[in-house]
Amino acid sequence: MIKNKKGNQTIVFPNKPVILSTASVVGKKEGKGPLSQWFDTRLEDDTFGEKTWEKSESKMLKAAMTQALQKSGRSKEDIGAMLSGDLLNQLMSSSFMARDLHIPFLGMYGACSTMTESLMLGAVLTDGQYSDNVMIGASSHYCTAERQFRMPLEHGNQRPPSAQWTATAAGAMVLSCGIKERQQIIADEEGNTKIPEIVRVTCGTIGKIIDAGIKDANQMGAAMAPAAVDTLLNHLQDTGRSITDYDLILTGDLGYIGKDIAKDLLVGAGIPKQELDNRYDDCGAMIFEKEQDVHSGGSGCGCSASVFAGYVYKRLIKGQLKKVLIMSTGALLSTISPFQGESIPGIAHAISLETESGGACV
Amino acid sequence: MIKNKKGNQTIVFPNKPVILSTASVVGKKEGKGPLSQWFDTRLEDDTFGEKTWEKSESKMLKAAMTQALQKSGRSKEDIGAMLSGDLLNQLMSSSFMARDLHIPFLGMYGACSTMTESLMLGAVLTDGQYSDNVMIGASSHYCTAERQFRMPLEHGNQRPPSAQWTATAAGAMVLSCGIKERQQIIADEEGNTKIPEIVRVTCGTIGKIIDAGIKDANQMGAAMAPAAVDTLLNHLQDTGRSITDYDLILTGDLGYIGKDIAKDLLVGAGIPKQELDNRYDDCGAMIFEKEQDVHSGGSGCGCSASVFAGYVYKRLIKGQLKKVLIMSTGALLSTISPFQGESIPGIAHAISLETESGGACV
Repeated sequence: MIKNKKGNQTIVFPNKPVILSTASVVGKKEGKGPLSQWFDTRLEDDTFGEKTWEKSESKMLKAAMTQALQKSGRSKEDIGAMLSGDLLNQLMSSSFMARDLHIPFLGMYGACSTMTESLMLGAVLTDGQYSDNVMIGASSHYCTAERQFRMPLEHGNQRPPSAQWTATAAGAMVLSCGIKERQQIIADEEGNTKIPEIVRVTCGTIGKIIDAGIKDANQMGAAMAPAAVDTLLNHLQDTGRSITDYDLILTGDLGYIGKDIAKDLLVGAGIPKQELDNRYDDCGAMIFEKEQDVHSGGSGCGCSASVFAGYVYKRLIKGQLKKVLIMSTGALLSTISPFQGESIPGIAHAISLETESGGACV
Repeated sequence: MIKNKKGNQTIVFPNKPVILSTASVVGKKEGKGPLSQWFDTRLEDDTFGEKTWEKSESKMLKAAMTQALQKSGRSKEDIGAMLSGDLLNQLMSSSFMARDLHIPFLGMYGACSTMTESLMLGAVLTDGQYSDNVMIGASSHYCTAERQFRMPLEHGNQRPPSAQWTATAAGAMVLSCGIKERQQIIADEEGNTKIPEIVRVTCGTIGKIIDAGIKDANQMGAAMAPAAVDTLLNHLQDTGRSITDYDLILTGDLGYIGKDIAKDLLVGAGIPKQELDNRYDDCGAMIFEKEQDVHSGGSGCGCSASVFAGYVYKRLIKGQLKKVLIMSTGALLSTISPFQGESIPGIAHAISLETESGGACV
């Protein structure tokens, strides 16, 4: 089987690594949003008992990683590598989390695209049997992101309608080239028990950086939408799939404005509008209610990380979804690049998740 | 062949990916140092014609990547992924470089360990034939690092003797699962021409984060040395090798003080001192003359990246070295973690480079 054709951005995983387990931890506001029930841990207090927001974020990520590991039935010694990233300068949340867990560590940075970036390389490591098991994760925190990228919270500044609300959230997964020996029985809404579906990573598309020339750091959705569209179109072309092959296609954190732009661009590129409306959504548009005063929706690495680890994974193992394409989306501006006149480049990586009852995987 | 044993940190690459080409670009001071002749490009002016230091650094990295690609005989379309990182917040140098080159991009962050982190994952991608060819690279710049991590240059502050000088340097490599079709003839010091040796990546050890409790941000070498020692000892244990299996063992940027600490720790762990003295060195201790007023030596992602891409690779293809273990070393502090009372965790990843005339690779 050809894993990667020349000029293609898509890698096929012949051994279809399994996601053994996931875990998600979210803040108070996220825990009151529409996806509340899908998250494993909802904090009552976003400090998580720590003295600084950065330590709170790192602790959230560590809690997600630890819980995912526990659920996987694997031990620390079984994990060949941990791939993780966050938005903080020098990956402060991930570095200190990884110091405490003491597992071989590879730091990833793709801004809010980090979850699918880590999943891509984690899938390569496990599919190729370079590691039997790997852990991946990503996090963000509203208070650390505001302090670093925008204004200190104490400043109480106004936010334009196009601004997004960085999700206080962390998501983690354990990937494996084998299948978990004992499957835990799960129950559906009606209380009927069943053996959970096995969720496999079948292929992934590595994104190119696309720069639409947006210079307004409060227009992140607009800056990232063209990258998401580019990656999706390349994914479809490389795999010969159409969007109807998926039950659900999710972008990371384009928010309301970015989601509309992405849809317009996709329809413009020939994707039928009705088919798109039926299966396309954005984690940033899903994680909060519009009434939660988040302007253009959620953002941050942790937004897509927690929605994939919570909502998407759990619906897959329940058999409610069979084929999902997840695409975390990142805006690659730095804290100083806008001051140097730079525009905001975007990137998106796509990963196809499929259950075995979803039919032939590739 | 088992690529990775449970509990081991070392991955064996059965297909032994080839480093097709490398390129290095260094600043004025580095170009006047003892390794001057081994670098491809020595800048006359560290601004590189740009208006900000950050843009200068990004341009250096782009120049190194472009030159490595040119030398490899591959085209952009042949490159499945580019893995790169730097020290700047949000990987500013790498992101803007990757935007301009328009190749599928995966951002890496391991502080100064980035070069061997990227090489590790690049080797996994090519060894497993997930990508036929990948590019990797890393950069640093004295002026961007001072501004971000220490004091603005204009401040003219004094530096303690333990401080290191961030190298203005970039290194890049093209890795492949195939061999270059046409080998360029190279000449040795005496003008004798020969076909260059083929340099292969045979195995690599993913580092764990080691925190020795150092809290002084001017003691980077001391903070990183225990991580380098841990990775080297694990590498030797996992592979059953001894240090005499290598002609040269290089750490990234421990500098004079860190190098001495690493040697003390290794001798304490039972490595014979004479054997260590004969083959161990540190890129941070090599890139500058002591007379160049750099205190404890060089540092920065670009330090080991340029020394590996320049000095190490060129000595390997000339047949002057046959087996080299390279270990970039990173200090995972952030710009704010020391102010929150955190110590400085260290990490190091090791990669074994071997030429075919060096005998059996694994």
